Amino acid sequence: MPKAIGVTLEEARRIIAAAKDKAAEIKQPMNIAVVDEGANLVAFERMDGAWIGSIDIAQKKAFTSRAFDLDTKTLGENSQSGNQFFGIHASNNGKVMIFAGGVPLKRNGEVVGAIGISGGSGVQDQTVAEAGAAAFAK
Amino acid sequence: MPKAIGVTLEEARRIIAAAKDKAAEIKQPMNIAVVDEGANLVAFERMDGAWIGSIDIAQKKAFTSRAFDLDTKTLGENSQSGNQFFGIHASNNGKVMIFAGGVPLKRNGEVVGAIGISGGSGVQDQTVAEAGAAAFAK
Amino acid sequence: MPKAIGVTLEEARRIIAAAKDKAAEIKQPMNIAVVDEGANLVAFERMDGAWIGSIDIAQKKAFTSRAFDLDTKTLGENSQSGNQFFGIHASNNGKVMIFAGGVPLKRNGEVVGAIGISGGSGVQDQTVAEAGAAAFAK
Amino acid sequence: MPKAIGVTLEEARRIIAAAKDKAAEIKQPMNIAVVDEGANLVAFERMDGAWIGSIDIAQKKAFTSRAFDLDTKTLGENSQSGNQFFGIHASNNGKVMIFAGGVPLKRNGEVVGAIGISGGSGVQDQTVAEAGAAAFAK
Repeated sequence: MPKAIGVTLEEARRIIAAAKDKAAEIKQPMNIAVVDEGANLVAFERMDGAWIGSIDIAQKKAFTSRAFDLDTKTLGENSQSGNQFFGIHASNNGKVMIFAGGVPLKRNGEVVGAIGISGGSGVQDQTVAEAGAAAFAK
Repeated sequence: MPKAIGVTLEEARRIIAAAKDKAAEIKQPMNIAVVDEGANLVAFERMDGAWIGSIDIAQKKAFTSRAFDLDTKTLGENSQSGNQFFGIHASNNGKVMIFAGGVPLKRNGEVVGAIGISGGSGVQDQTVAEAGAAAFAK
Repeated sequence: MPKAIGVTLEEARRIIAAAKDKAAEIKQPMNIAVVDEGANLVAFERMDGAWIGSIDIAQKKAFTSRAFDLDTKTLGENSQSGNQFFGIHASNNGKVMIFAGGVPLKRNGEVVGAIGISGGSGVQDQTVAEAGAAAFAK
Repeated sequence: MPKAIGVTLEEARRIIAAAKDKAAEIKQPMNIAVVDEGANLVAFERMDGAWIGSIDIAQKKAFTSRAFDLDTKTLGENSQSGNQFFGIHASNNGKVMIFAGGVPLKRNGEVVGAIGISGGSGVQDQTVAEAGAAAFAK
């Protein structure tokens, strides 16, 4: 049987479904991406009417969150001018996003993937990403 | 209600489901992408065990098919060394794929999106893409 | 304990050591790269005097071999003008190499990484890559 | 005998070994890169469990340190918003890293290469890079 790396497609679909429910609840259409343990894309959905420019951002937030095993929100705080990771957004050929919306997916306390959300304010993106990640943790 | 451009997320999911059924039938895990009328990604799924290098290719086949309103297979035939479109793969910042697996999605005879499949041989990719496109035409 | 994905650093170092032995035997300094199951770099070594331009190629051959679970030599044969994958080198943002020297690393028959070699002729690169892969299979 | 430029592979391996010892001591898995006098990669190792996003950053810190013959930490201080080199991270096709972890390798007072470390906080990265550079100076 073909092997998934950390996150199966079935799990990614469940995560996306939970994220869409939260997005519908707060009435903000979103772009939703899930990457696996190797930081490679497993599944993506753009809700009707969600920003076109966020197709790329959602995927890159998911990549970033798994690449550094943390919330992109936290990375962002450390990447402002004067802080320890300022300039990190120039690395990884433009794939590093340093604002809220990327959240790691954990299994038994270990990061095995990530979800990335883009389409609303930072607070909205973070809220929806956390809803998706919570569905995986269950 | 938020507006989709040519292909809704609901329709994209139905197309992907049909493609996955065909991929399962021929026993070849696939990467499946659907773009809308603006050639922008609506949804993507990587079946467990499908090639990592095809995440990018499936999306680019879908882009290419809508970008030129034809099967990437047909574009490929015209893009071999000595033929009229040889070199077209260097355009659009590397987003043009010139081998089988990208198929337009039509509504009332008009192209409103495309599906891109990557993960097997050219014949397998084409077969699965056609199955996905057929589900949309219904 | 920190988890490796498919190939540990210790294993990568053993693979590289075997590749270097073969390179020394055929008297051709090489660039040697090993990627893990997620197609991400684990270790790299450039032997003294090996081509600078091959630093990039060795890494991309390793990526390509894992990305498509095959020898880059085989992919190359299928990617010539007129063949089914012609144009695939334009995908994955220039990371796809379609000539000999990339070989999958298998565990229990499943691909869990790859080795990429660059620095000599196609035959030399392939020979050294196979020697490295053989050391992993043991 | 094939010629190395400033730093041989043997020396690079010794530098990396010292860096790994320090990383193990502070219990933080790291990505470790060594470039030569031409600012080209000689060797790289990712310790098991080290951040995937830091594969790229470690290599770029090493490049940057040799490219400007200084600690990336120092360059970073001069590259914050309002300071004299603000914006330098946009140069060299995104290869310039402006935070701690890149340290020059010196022979007889002259820079002949550099080490780049990524995987922890700025302080941790710097500590490990200095341990690697010290092993070369001996």
